[in-house]
Amino acid sequence: MTRINAAHSDQTDPLRHFRERFDLPDGVVYLDGNSLGALPKTVKARVARTISDEWGEQLIRSWNTAGWVHLPQKVGGKIARLIGAQEGTVVSADSTSINLFKVLSAALSLNPGRTGIVSERENFPTDLYIAQGVAKQIGQGHQLALAEKPADIPAMLTDDVAVLMLTHVNYRTGYRHDMTAITKAAHDRGILVIWDLAHSAGAMAIDLAGADADFAIGCGYKYLNGGPGAPAFLYVNPRHHGGFRQPLSGWFGHRAPFAFEPSYAPSGGIEHYLCGTPSVLGMVAMDEALTLWDEVDMDALRAKSVALCDFFIQEVEGFADEFGLTLVTPRNPEQRGSQVSYSCENGYAIMQALIARGVIGDFRAPDIIRFGFTPLYLSFAEVAEAVAILREILTTRAWDAPEYKVRGAVT
Amino acid sequence: MTRINAAHSDQTDPLRHFRERFDLPDGVVYLDGNSLGALPKTVKARVARTISDEWGEQLIRSWNTAGWVHLPQKVGGKIARLIGAQEGTVVSADSTSINLFKVLSAALSLNPGRTGIVSERENFPTDLYIAQGVAKQIGQGHQLALAEKPADIPAMLTDDVAVLMLTHVNYRTGYRHDMTAITKAAHDRGILVIWDLAHSAGAMAIDLAGADADFAIGCGYKYLNGGPGAPAFLYVNPRHHGGFRQPLSGWFGHRAPFAFEPSYAPSGGIEHYLCGTPSVLGMVAMDEALTLWDEVDMDALRAKSVALCDFFIQEVEGFADEFGLTLVTPRNPEQRGSQVSYSCENGYAIMQALIARGVIGDFRAPDIIRFGFTPLYLSFAEVAEAVAILREILTTRAWDAPEYKVRGAVT
Repeated sequence: MTRINAAHSDQTDPLRHFRERFDLPDGVVYLDGNSLGALPKTVKARVARTISDEWGEQLIRSWNTAGWVHLPQKVGGKIARLIGAQEGTVVSADSTSINLFKVLSAALSLNPGRTGIVSERENFPTDLYIAQGVAKQIGQGHQLALAEKPADIPAMLTDDVAVLMLTHVNYRTGYRHDMTAITKAAHDRGILVIWDLAHSAGAMAIDLAGADADFAIGCGYKYLNGGPGAPAFLYVNPRHHGGFRQPLSGWFGHRAPFAFEPSYAPSGGIEHYLCGTPSVLGMVAMDEALTLWDEVDMDALRAKSVALCDFFIQEVEGFADEFGLTLVTPRNPEQRGSQVSYSCENGYAIMQALIARGVIGDFRAPDIIRFGFTPLYLSFAEVAEAVAILREILTTRAWDAPEYKVRGAVT
Repeated sequence: MTRINAAHSDQTDPLRHFRERFDLPDGVVYLDGNSLGALPKTVKARVARTISDEWGEQLIRSWNTAGWVHLPQKVGGKIARLIGAQEGTVVSADSTSINLFKVLSAALSLNPGRTGIVSERENFPTDLYIAQGVAKQIGQGHQLALAEKPADIPAMLTDDVAVLMLTHVNYRTGYRHDMTAITKAAHDRGILVIWDLAHSAGAMAIDLAGADADFAIGCGYKYLNGGPGAPAFLYVNPRHHGGFRQPLSGWFGHRAPFAFEPSYAPSGGIEHYLCGTPSVLGMVAMDEALTLWDEVDMDALRAKSVALCDFFIQEVEGFADEFGLTLVTPRNPEQRGSQVSYSCENGYAIMQALIARGVIGDFRAPDIIRFGFTPLYLSFAEVAEAVAILREILTTRAWDAPEYKVRGAVT
């Protein structure tokens, strides 16, 4: 890595004008956009209009006149470009967990006779929980096998495996899988692949179609800035559209939801993966948050993300050993997302002390402090400031105070 | 029925001051609160604060500091009083369809060896679709049997039936089941009962605990006024809490969501029925909409609902036969909810003509015009006005115009 100069990098940053599109509090360096993205400035007014004009004035008519009924497809269409999906293959709906339930159920039904589901022990836990729930409900002896580390995965892709289910970028370590190579290796053994894009959608360009992925799911409230608990999304390769294959068969997935027929008849398109009535307020916020992405050059986004992470790693390197911080994120940008994590003793208290000083990252059990780098609203100067505060907290042991050891419901 | 005088009824209406708590457009008589409830005035400011202060300023910290993480239980607790549920038995989450998937899966697992699911052909279609989806995924030969009319249900409660699944008030006809009697009849045959409260929660007092119901689900965006696509809710009788029985086993249902354990271990309480990250914007709107219910006397609410419906039926009776309107809602208030429906030829066009004149009800295929009566914001004078406009449209055949025959995506 060449040495990065913060001031010069900020001056030449082609994305620097995006910062003014977000509301961010003074005195905060926000390194947690990988947990909850910051607020795009136009969202508040858009949601207010939806509440007062569409809901309050137009009332029920807005399902047609304001296009509420098509929001899942409209929002999905905006996400499609960011993840390299074909037209008509993405919808926004429900939560990431529920969308995984849909696509994993579909994938298993498409690969009958095979009972293996392969994932990683380090995958985000809800993905593993959902796989356990699906396997238990199907009751056909499906077994979830967990790789201990990424290198173990290829050997686990045997002929009894139905589905490989991975998160593209690991939530704790920031490790990124090679989507194209792994998908191909799985397909070579007749295995369908589901990618969870929670920590990569909006952090880098993704090419689902190019990688020939079967299914993908992802989160609206991280790098896409859709707001707390924003609707999630899902992608289904066109070759898997149609058929009665996903069990959350609610009326919005019916070919004619307002015909009120007593039997389910699935839409032939991606709408088949919708279930109940869309969450309009959440989806309008998401739709608004996605508008600014039309202007984002995804190559520039990735280049800045890599540079921000490199800069942070370089600067922390000077004192990491002294204070027992072990980098758990790959140094090779090809193997990571847009976050940098360290394992360390007293990580929880250190992160609380950082937050008290305005440097907001987060802690992930048992011992990871995690810093997310969102290229749209972070500057190199802020990264330098975060490093300086981290160093000071470690040097002065400011973290070693009772108030930094009290745990909230959400860590 | 005694003759109702609109002016006198409005003067003596104990709920009349609730009208000013809602934003309703001028020139509209809103008889569709059973499809999308009107906007409570305080919702817009509350959501705006959540967006700018909690999301924009406090960012990720709001999961703890603003209590986002406990919204499902908080909102559920407010709904509990309205439906006669014990403390800690209701959560708000996901959509009605998805919540039915959870509780139906749970109910079937609690009644192993029985393969029957009984419902009605006239149940809201998504409930039937979900039952079909659950049965297909479980793959143990569960069969959905549909009663043609309510009177057929008792004879269908045989010893091979696992679950009876009914909507308390029918969405088309407004027919209301006797929850206590039917639940008892089902329990006498070892059958578990799920009640869908979509068209009764917020329309009348409900007593789930008194009826000893096993499970219930319901909608946030109808009589509860939670906003378009508001989070739904579910109730689980305390005797069915605990155990690994619901397949949508996402992290918010885990006993320790932020311990990030690789195996699912369910919460012992109602949280077990949560799945993914709560939809904060929708849930905050719902929470705010529910605040005014603390002041509502549910007996007064029901009395006004009955009187509004009686008044409408009486007034329409004078010309219904002449124009081929057949009342499909029971005249006996004990057998109905808070809506009045007629079957009629050209129902779609008649409803469009009504809407064009500011009387907003809705149409349900194939031939039902439906009028919902929301006691919190409707006056008897408005009902009289709606009747007068309906009569005029029928007398002048104003509905017989091309523009009233064009169908929207949502009818």
